[in-house]
Amino acid sequence: MNKKVLIVGGVAGGASAAARLRRLDENIEIILFERGQYISFANCGLPYHIGEVIKKREKLLLQTPEAMKKRFNIDVRVHNEVISIDKENKKVSVKNTITGDIYDESYDELILSTGSSPQRPAIPGINGENIFTIWNIPDMDDIKDYLSKENIKEVSIVGGGFIGVEMAENFCELGLDVHIIQRPNQVMPTVDFEMAQFLHQYMEDKGIKLILEDGVKEFRSEGGKTIVITNKGREIVSDLVILSIGIKANSQLAKDAGLELNDRGGIIVNEYLKTSDPHIYAVGDVIQVKDFVNGVNTMVPLAGPANKQGRIVANNIAGYREEYKGTQGTSVAKIFDMTISSTGTNEKTLMKLGKSYGRDYQSIYLHPVNHAGYYPGSQVIHMKLIYELPTGRVLGAQGIGGAGTDKRIDVIATAIRFGATVESLKELELAYAPPYSSAKDPVNMAGFIATNHLSGNMDVIQYYEIEELNLNEYTILDVRTPVERNFGFIPNSINIAVDQLRDRLDELDKAKTIVVYCAVGVRSWTAYNVLKHNGFSPRNLTGGYTTYSTAYYNQEGKIDYPKN
Amino acid sequence: MNKKVLIVGGVAGGASAAARLRRLDENIEIILFERGQYISFANCGLPYHIGEVIKKREKLLLQTPEAMKKRFNIDVRVHNEVISIDKENKKVSVKNTITGDIYDESYDELILSTGSSPQRPAIPGINGENIFTIWNIPDMDDIKDYLSKENIKEVSIVGGGFIGVEMAENFCELGLDVHIIQRPNQVMPTVDFEMAQFLHQYMEDKGIKLILEDGVKEFRSEGGKTIVITNKGREIVSDLVILSIGIKANSQLAKDAGLELNDRGGIIVNEYLKTSDPHIYAVGDVIQVKDFVNGVNTMVPLAGPANKQGRIVANNIAGYREEYKGTQGTSVAKIFDMTISSTGTNEKTLMKLGKSYGRDYQSIYLHPVNHAGYYPGSQVIHMKLIYELPTGRVLGAQGIGGAGTDKRIDVIATAIRFGATVESLKELELAYAPPYSSAKDPVNMAGFIATNHLSGNMDVIQYYEIEELNLNEYTILDVRTPVERNFGFIPNSINIAVDQLRDRLDELDKAKTIVVYCAVGVRSWTAYNVLKHNGFSPRNLTGGYTTYSTAYYNQEGKIDYPKN
Ligand SMILES: Cc1cc2nc3c(=O)[nH]c(=O)nc-3n(C[C@H](O)[C@H](O)[C@H](O)COP(=O)(O)OP(=O)(O)OC[C@H]3O[C@@H](n4cnc5c(N)ncnc54)[C@H](O)[C@@H]3O)c2cc1C
Ligand SMILES: Cc1cc2nc3c(=O)[nH]c(=O)nc-3n(C[C@H](O)[C@H](O)[C@H](O)COP(=O)(O)OP(=O)(O)OC[C@H]3O[C@@H](n4cnc5c(N)ncnc54)[C@H](O)[C@@H]3O)c2cc1C
Ligand SMILES: CC(C)(COP(=O)(O)OP(=O)(O)OC[C@H]1O[C@@H](n2cnc3c(N)ncnc32)[C@H](O)[C@@H]1OP(=O)(O)O)[C@@H](O)C(=O)NCCC(=O)NCCS
Ligand SMILES: CC(C)(COP(=O)(O)OP(=O)(O)OC[C@H]1O[C@@H](n2cnc3c(N)ncnc32)[C@H](O)[C@@H]1OP(=O)(O)O)[C@@H](O)C(=O)NCCC(=O)NCCS
Repeated sequence: MNKKVLIVGGVAGGASAAARLRRLDENIEIILFERGQYISFANCGLPYHIGEVIKKREKLLLQTPEAMKKRFNIDVRVHNEVISIDKENKKVSVKNTITGDIYDESYDELILSTGSSPQRPAIPGINGENIFTIWNIPDMDDIKDYLSKENIKEVSIVGGGFIGVEMAENFCELGLDVHIIQRPNQVMPTVDFEMAQFLHQYMEDKGIKLILEDGVKEFRSEGGKTIVITNKGREIVSDLVILSIGIKANSQLAKDAGLELNDRGGIIVNEYLKTSDPHIYAVGDVIQVKDFVNGVNTMVPLAGPANKQGRIVANNIAGYREEYKGTQGTSVAKIFDMTISSTGTNEKTLMKLGKSYGRDYQSIYLHPVNHAGYYPGSQVIHMKLIYELPTGRVLGAQGIGGAGTDKRIDVIATAIRFGATVESLKELELAYAPPYSSAKDPVNMAGFIATNHLSGNMDVIQYYEIEELNLNEYTILDVRTPVERNFGFIPNSINIAVDQLRDRLDELDKAKTIVVYCAVGVRSWTAYNVLKHNGFSPRNLTGGYTTYSTAYYNQEGKIDYPKN
Repeated sequence: MNKKVLIVGGVAGGASAAARLRRLDENIEIILFERGQYISFANCGLPYHIGEVIKKREKLLLQTPEAMKKRFNIDVRVHNEVISIDKENKKVSVKNTITGDIYDESYDELILSTGSSPQRPAIPGINGENIFTIWNIPDMDDIKDYLSKENIKEVSIVGGGFIGVEMAENFCELGLDVHIIQRPNQVMPTVDFEMAQFLHQYMEDKGIKLILEDGVKEFRSEGGKTIVITNKGREIVSDLVILSIGIKANSQLAKDAGLELNDRGGIIVNEYLKTSDPHIYAVGDVIQVKDFVNGVNTMVPLAGPANKQGRIVANNIAGYREEYKGTQGTSVAKIFDMTISSTGTNEKTLMKLGKSYGRDYQSIYLHPVNHAGYYPGSQVIHMKLIYELPTGRVLGAQGIGGAGTDKRIDVIATAIRFGATVESLKELELAYAPPYSSAKDPVNMAGFIATNHLSGNMDVIQYYEIEELNLNEYTILDVRTPVERNFGFIPNSINIAVDQLRDRLDELDKAKTIVVYCAVGVRSWTAYNVLKHNGFSPRNLTGGYTTYSTAYYNQEGKIDYPKN
């Protein structure tokens, strides 16, 4: 008799596993259960149909049950929810969610790709009729329907992660007023605070109202509107509210079946993506994965890993043994003309893991342009590179900027996969012509800077260390031109432009450490060397005034603006 | 006394070495000799100023002697040509090209970054007044001057490499009629013929007239015009001619000094970029480098390597020992909205090195879109991946297509640097959101395809093997829909759409090998598996009809177009 494989969940992980499995074996019986109406839909495209960037709804439906039958001979059963697993007898119970009928189906191997669902915490009023989540096609339809029927002007988005940010863009494109309410002090938790500040600035410029470090206490329904009341007492009158606060793994089924879960409800799998039961595999948002960089267990709900895991499980079931080596969390989001991308670990995570800056790891900043500055249309990319001490192994990178930001993060993501050190980043041979890059690509540049630091040639100081400096021991030296200072400078800094430095060294006190800065760190690096070779002890402010002033964006008193 | 370093050549390699050396050592005396009027100019930007894409000429001048003095305390001497090297006495003779004065300058270490120059073969009439090369600022000025004074309509570009192609774009942007005359059968020698065909098609669509497999026999001057007469007897009346036929290393100086050169005139250096003389280093276009992928000696005239080599030599001179590990030839060019990029080796090179297809290496094609197809504006990227047999080590990749082509090649370039195999390409975790990529990035997809082949799961056939097939032994099966066939198909192929294949297997002859194809290779891969698991012996046409029909673009009788 033919092998029989059941798959629970018909989207990213599940449908990928099904298609691959069929290609590897024409004779296996494959049944795909999906509790919703649709399989293989583009979750990631949902915000863009709401924003009418993707005009046609059917574009989001990548496969239908009929097409999957014809192409792959797969028995797809939508509106069929798997409600229990009997692992001893290798069968599942399935409920037809339309008829209510319940039936059993036996299996030789079972794949769980049940995904995750948006959280709806027990906040008073959270079930109000104009409060939505956005997770699947019906969610999207509901939101579009509400938008078309009601006179919507003000939208509140609770939660400023990927989906919150993408929804904000799309609502703006529709001409709506958008608030984001976010409990942490930043949006996009994948990047560190000072990097997110570039985004805060940009989003506020675009008219999005950010309410950070404040959570929702209550939703009050009033005359067809919802008033979002925050912990700090703000009241935002909203015609529509989106909840994108976080997600939870859909692992109740696995839990009831007695499969091993972690404390966040993630199904524990081995390197072949097998659960604690020898005939049950699991993939996608619902599983625990190994953090590729830190080696610890984590959960990373992303489509790339889900698709690849689905393919790996199919390989393993068909007899082509393949390991899943962990997830590094490479991700990207677009907001208007800005790209936010990151890979590997960030400083917040390192700190949670007990690592400390300057001892276990180091971070540096740069602000290169995406292609030759003389070729029209160059755009800045703000980058942060994090690496291990003392090995120099690249741990993570973050990029926020214009076109080509995703490219640099993908290149570093690739390097991380091979265990690269910062030395190897400087050697990468990347494609250069003026419309695409510079002869020293931003990734090379990150490697140069990090290597200068790692080799002991450059002592760096971070923006947040500045305000703790004892000015009896430190001089803060601004080597930009006086004109640049007109737009703001670090309090208590003195100014000698880099090109005059060699002639004005006698104005500086050799007994003090000199913190040198410019706009981004390039001129200050030249100044640093002039100082060092003349017997001073300099430190280079990494990322320069750009990182400093952005990190302190919206924080009074941190920047001196000339009075006149 | 302070160390004294002389640098010959003040652009990519030379200026980079000078700046880095100063940052590493404030006390070295650094003199930079440049025989031309300008240092640190953007060679790579020259075509774009001619095309008025870069409006301001001064944007191309990245540094001036005065600024280099102020910023880096470097003694820059333009109009100063080094005319000989006395390596025994460690001094050079320098000629001031304005005054004609000759003087000596001693050194402790000498760096040669003399670059290369465009070739001007001894073709009759080659010194005609409207025949130009484009290599530096004066060349550019001359061309712009001629364009502004004469009534230019027809331009002939002899040589279709990078510069020829970039110039073609820029002349088109000025509204001129452009011919490219190219001796080989393709433009852009960095990619293989069948890939260049995408470019040929595109350029001809844009109105550029390509004359391939034909060389120039004579330039005849006639009434202010130049008639370009080719070996095959074509006569192209031209108002302006650009020569971009190839380059030669500027190594006469090195040769006269008795430094070791290779047979192409490239200066031989060791891994520290030191020449055969212990106090002379050389970098950039003028040196021989190791081909990173094949390990053989070669010459690669590119700005990225020149800049990085300049930095490495500075490190070595300042006492920070650093190796140069070879050049893999990653490059990119833009022509209108198309990007042509490649990294590593190509098939032509492998064949020259005596490697053979199917034994030593394999190549596969794919034609993915740059980002999720449902997100507006997706563009096709035509890709070729070449890998070693039987190891699967990635040897090279070529991409021709829309936005994001450069990203994929940079990612593969990075992977190659770490000795990646095709298996690791499929595991790369690249950033995905609909505007940037697909959940399975094109690079992952290339890894999947190659791994399917390498593991023995997929037998592939190349487009050029089709016409040699004995139809008594082979069936050519087109699994596209009948509608798609209306636009052309492979001669002698039969048609069963993939979705009907399972039901129509009895129409096929099991005794024959079945060559299966679709538009790109995806549906045929599913069909392949249906066939294989049903006892047939299939082979998948890699790249499908897209690669096939493009490879045979402009070649009569290779494609069947339905009559009605
Ligand atoms: C709006 C939005 C935007 C996103 N954008 C991105 C992005 O840009 N990039 C990115 O990498 N990721 C993005 N993601 C995340 C990505 O879509 C998920 O990580 C991925 O879909 C997870 O795949 P999965 O197979 O684990 O789960 P899913 O794709 O969610 O599929 C799980 C399916 O299982 C079904 N199911 C659950 N339980 C049962 C049951 N008991 N019986 C039958 N069926 C069941 C569910 O109905 C669901 O359809 C986005 C997600 C959303 C919602
Ligand atoms: C039009 C054009 C477009 C290009 N586009 C690209 C591109 O998109 N991407 C890319 O990677 N590369 C590109 N290149 C190639 C790139 O510019 C070169 O590879 C790079 O500049 C080589 O650096 P180099 O230092 O070896 O030589 P160069 O930068 O050419 O500098 C050599 C200098 O040495 C001087 N010199 C020579 N002999 C003497 C002497 N005896 N005394 C004093 N001075 C001397 C010369 O006058 C010259 O200024 C392009 C080149 C050109 C001309
Ligand atoms: C639609 C869906 C079923 C497609 O699955 P799929 O058939 O595995 O994927 P594709 O259509 O991209 O085809 C990929 C296959 O074609 C092969 N292929 C691609 N180009 C090829 C070429 N030129 N030559 C040969 N084979 C090729 C690949 O190797 C791969 O086959 P393999 O896995 O057997 O190696 C699944 O991806 C899905 O449901 N996606 C939507 C849900 C989702 O991912 N949501 C989250 C993101 S929005
Ligand atoms: C202009 C030119 C002299 C610049 O040389 P350069 O000073 O080495 O290059 P940059 O201005 O890019 O500065 C790079 C330096 O700044 C450092 N840097 C960059 N960003 C930094 C940051 N945020 N913090 C600290 N340091 C930083 C880099 O580490 C590097 O220093 P290093 O080499 O000592 O490590 C040289 O590149 C040149 O002549 N170019 C034009 C010619 C040419 O290349 N033509 C061909 C291509 S068109």
